Amino acid sequence: MDEFEIERVTEPELTEPAFIEGLPGVGHVGKLAVEHLLEELDGELIRRVYSTHLPPQVGVEDGVATLACAEVHALDADGTDLLVLTGDHQAGDGVGHYGLAATFLDIAERFGTEMVYTLGGVPTGELIQEYDVIGAVNAADRRDPLEAAGVEFREDEPAGGIVGVSGLLLGLGGRRDVSAACLMGETSGYLVDPKSAQAVLETLQELLEFEVEFASLESRAEEMEEVVRKIQEMEQGTPTASDEDLRYIG
Amino acid sequence: MDEFEIERVTEPELTEPAFIEGLPGVGHVGKLAVEHLLEELDGELIRRVYSTHLPPQVGVEDGVATLACAEVHALDADGTDLLVLTGDHQAGDGVGHYGLAATFLDIAERFGTEMVYTLGGVPTGELIQEYDVIGAVNAADRRDPLEAAGVEFREDEPAGGIVGVSGLLLGLGGRRDVSAACLMGETSGYLVDPKSAQAVLETLQELLEFEVEFASLESRAEEMEEVVRKIQEMEQGTPTASDEDLRYIG
Amino acid sequence: MDEFEIERVTEPELTEPAFIEGLPGVGHVGKLAVEHLLEELDGELIRRVYSTHLPPQVGVEDGVATLACAEVHALDADGTDLLVLTGDHQAGDGVGHYGLAATFLDIAERFGTEMVYTLGGVPTGELIQEYDVIGAVNAADRRDPLEAAGVEFREDEPAGGIVGVSGLLLGLGGRRDVSAACLMGETSGYLVDPKSAQAVLETLQELLEFEVEFASLESRAEEMEEVVRKIQEMEQGTPTASDEDLRYIG
Amino acid sequence: MDEFEIERVTEPELTEPAFIEGLPGVGHVGKLAVEHLLEELDGELIRRVYSTHLPPQVGVEDGVATLACAEVHALDADGTDLLVLTGDHQAGDGVGHYGLAATFLDIAERFGTEMVYTLGGVPTGELIQEYDVIGAVNAADRRDPLEAAGVEFREDEPAGGIVGVSGLLLGLGGRRDVSAACLMGETSGYLVDPKSAQAVLETLQELLEFEVEFASLESRAEEMEEVVRKIQEMEQGTPTASDEDLRYIG
Repeated sequence: MDEFEIERVTEPELTEPAFIEGLPGVGHVGKLAVEHLLEELDGELIRRVYSTHLPPQVGVEDGVATLACAEVHALDADGTDLLVLTGDHQAGDGVGHYGLAATFLDIAERFGTEMVYTLGGVPTGELIQEYDVIGAVNAADRRDPLEAAGVEFREDEPAGGIVGVSGLLLGLGGRRDVSAACLMGETSGYLVDPKSAQAVLETLQELLEFEVEFASLESRAEEMEEVVRKIQEMEQGTPTASDEDLRYIG
Repeated sequence: MDEFEIERVTEPELTEPAFIEGLPGVGHVGKLAVEHLLEELDGELIRRVYSTHLPPQVGVEDGVATLACAEVHALDADGTDLLVLTGDHQAGDGVGHYGLAATFLDIAERFGTEMVYTLGGVPTGELIQEYDVIGAVNAADRRDPLEAAGVEFREDEPAGGIVGVSGLLLGLGGRRDVSAACLMGETSGYLVDPKSAQAVLETLQELLEFEVEFASLESRAEEMEEVVRKIQEMEQGTPTASDEDLRYIG
Repeated sequence: MDEFEIERVTEPELTEPAFIEGLPGVGHVGKLAVEHLLEELDGELIRRVYSTHLPPQVGVEDGVATLACAEVHALDADGTDLLVLTGDHQAGDGVGHYGLAATFLDIAERFGTEMVYTLGGVPTGELIQEYDVIGAVNAADRRDPLEAAGVEFREDEPAGGIVGVSGLLLGLGGRRDVSAACLMGETSGYLVDPKSAQAVLETLQELLEFEVEFASLESRAEEMEEVVRKIQEMEQGTPTASDEDLRYIG
Repeated sequence: MDEFEIERVTEPELTEPAFIEGLPGVGHVGKLAVEHLLEELDGELIRRVYSTHLPPQVGVEDGVATLACAEVHALDADGTDLLVLTGDHQAGDGVGHYGLAATFLDIAERFGTEMVYTLGGVPTGELIQEYDVIGAVNAADRRDPLEAAGVEFREDEPAGGIVGVSGLLLGLGGRRDVSAACLMGETSGYLVDPKSAQAVLETLQELLEFEVEFASLESRAEEMEEVVRKIQEMEQGTPTASDEDLRYIG
């Protein structure tokens, strides 16, 4: 196997698709958002990406093993073409992160992608009441349309930059003249956070002019809130709790 | 030396051999099983595999040093040809796991292998009374013959997938159209487990229609049980003990 | 992207420039010194260096993401040409350190560099009263002009050698017949140390015959001293404190 | 710089030299032994070996920096030619260990080396009264001449094999038909051990028929014994101490 290998599954004709990345990360915000799109929209698997820098393992479902990979689906969002990237793993080392990001950009360019969106969470350390979406772009002139859709740009956030494929798609994309933006939902950082994923998706809807139902994501959010309530009761003997008592739960 | 290097020792003619992997892992189940085959069946060493991703060391026996490697023997199991892979080491990094698995598949294909079986243990966290064998395959239509031989397929096991060469032979094999199955004996995870190895071998016998004696493996199992009893007495001052007091012993 | 990649930004004509490296390190001495030169002297960005051995991330400023890189500026220091290297990161592994150092030397040689100076701090474990500058060279005959400028050469310092790009520019430079010296300001090792950076720059001024103002660096030093005083008061309830109570602050 | 690079310094004519490796390791036995040969015998530096898998650093002596490397000297031992390898570092990763060992064998073969000896210590966990030398060879027929010189071969020692270049020169040497032996002096494992180094050198003298003075090594051993005595007195308030109270001292 090559270090980075693309398996071609289907070859649809797409019109200036948006490429949307949602690999695992803080609060699983990006992955939850992208999985929700895969549930709600019609489409097909078009590419699998394998790499010797992904973990050396297979996943097993109903006794059938599949090699660790990332998958790209083509989805139809009310007439807008989307390429949606997800998977169960990030790369295991820096060289892998760079190589995977470059491979994903190859796929995006092959299908004439207009704009890359990488989705993730930005940890605040506190439970969130109002879910702001923070943005970063790889060219200053891309800020305006995002601000019009409610994305916030802050002078000094995220303080540590953006690590992994979500960041590199912007950085490497910029060097290839591929426009890219990162949409980061605020999230406590302690919890799998379907509400933050919904906030990110609502921004994306506005930007790309499509609509999906959120019923299933909302019910998942309620389940999470129930879990949090129970933990707070258990740990404290009372139904009220401060944020500091939460651990990462998912 | 190349990153992955095959040393050809002999070139036997084999008829659609089964390729059986048993490198070190949980409970040493796979390695014990394969070493038992090497003791009980006639055959010869056919290949050594060296790699700069194996540990940088030599083993020493009677003062003679041999470079870290994996070995493939051809064995005659009541007229069925087996290729049996074992060794003292797994690779030291992800790239090494991928490369070794690909090299082992090269050898399997060179000899016209019909089916690859990877043997291992699945940790349960408890001492086992009845040693079930859990299965995974790399193509759904391979499940039936295994189920007929008593292998259990469970919706959500093993939960974390299969890591290392045992998993990659299925994953990379699938990409090359090489059929492969993983047979995992249940084991506590705390002990070198000859009984789990025997359960896996009994399944393999049924699948490949051969028979070996188990006397030596059974006596090794009794030695292990004696060790466990002594530890329980020492640690507790009484001959009865709960599982939680066991550490990994081998 | 290649493992090490140079982006050409501008191609100025320079006359035997000195190449000055100031990547992050002990007390941020080298980076502070080089950033001060960038503030005080006129010049332009001439090269960016990217590498898959730099951290897989982007920095974000005002919502605009830039890929992790090192930058080389050409500066005019009272008629003397300087090439000044800085950045936010060191390489993540040994192969990366070697490759980046070689890439920086390629740039230095391309512009006809006379001499490479690498700037850093040498930790003493104590708060410094008088900021000595310790030197190392990659050819014995380079010691004299540095000693004349007040640089101290000590038999057994720095005891552990010089690690990272600051050391490799000397080591690899020597193999290419590029003269190089490392100027190390004494520093406690606990604090970002603008005074140590100033001591290093004063030595460099003497060597290269240029002058910059130090007002901004001095005011930054005063801020650091104020921070230290406050910490000492907080931790001890009194305004006097021994060095051992300091942690790394920056 | 290449991953592994040989710098040719001189090209002496040598007659079937023995190649003797003494890089840092347990009790610094190998390095002490080889450094003693360099002090006592006449010769010249013939090769330096650089590698991006050696630590990314320079050593500094009297202000002059030298890139991390291993060095090979040609020495005249009473008419017997020796190639002596030493240095301050082992490789930083497995690929580096393999590549360095292969590079050293290239040098050994270039000069027509008859036999490779790798020198090291084998830790016993106890202070040693009588310094036995344990052996390992890479071909069984090499055992006899070593046994005749007093080297002990034990069924199950060293239990964990031989790690690093000392082991790989045997393992990779065997694959190239280069005869190689490892001579391991018993040593506590807690101390830099000049006595163990002397025991190894005495064996080597017998095997290669040369003689060196041991006065300087003996006086270094006495210094070490004085250090141990002082530590025992400090730690216990009495001049007698059990081995368990010693830490690694060098």
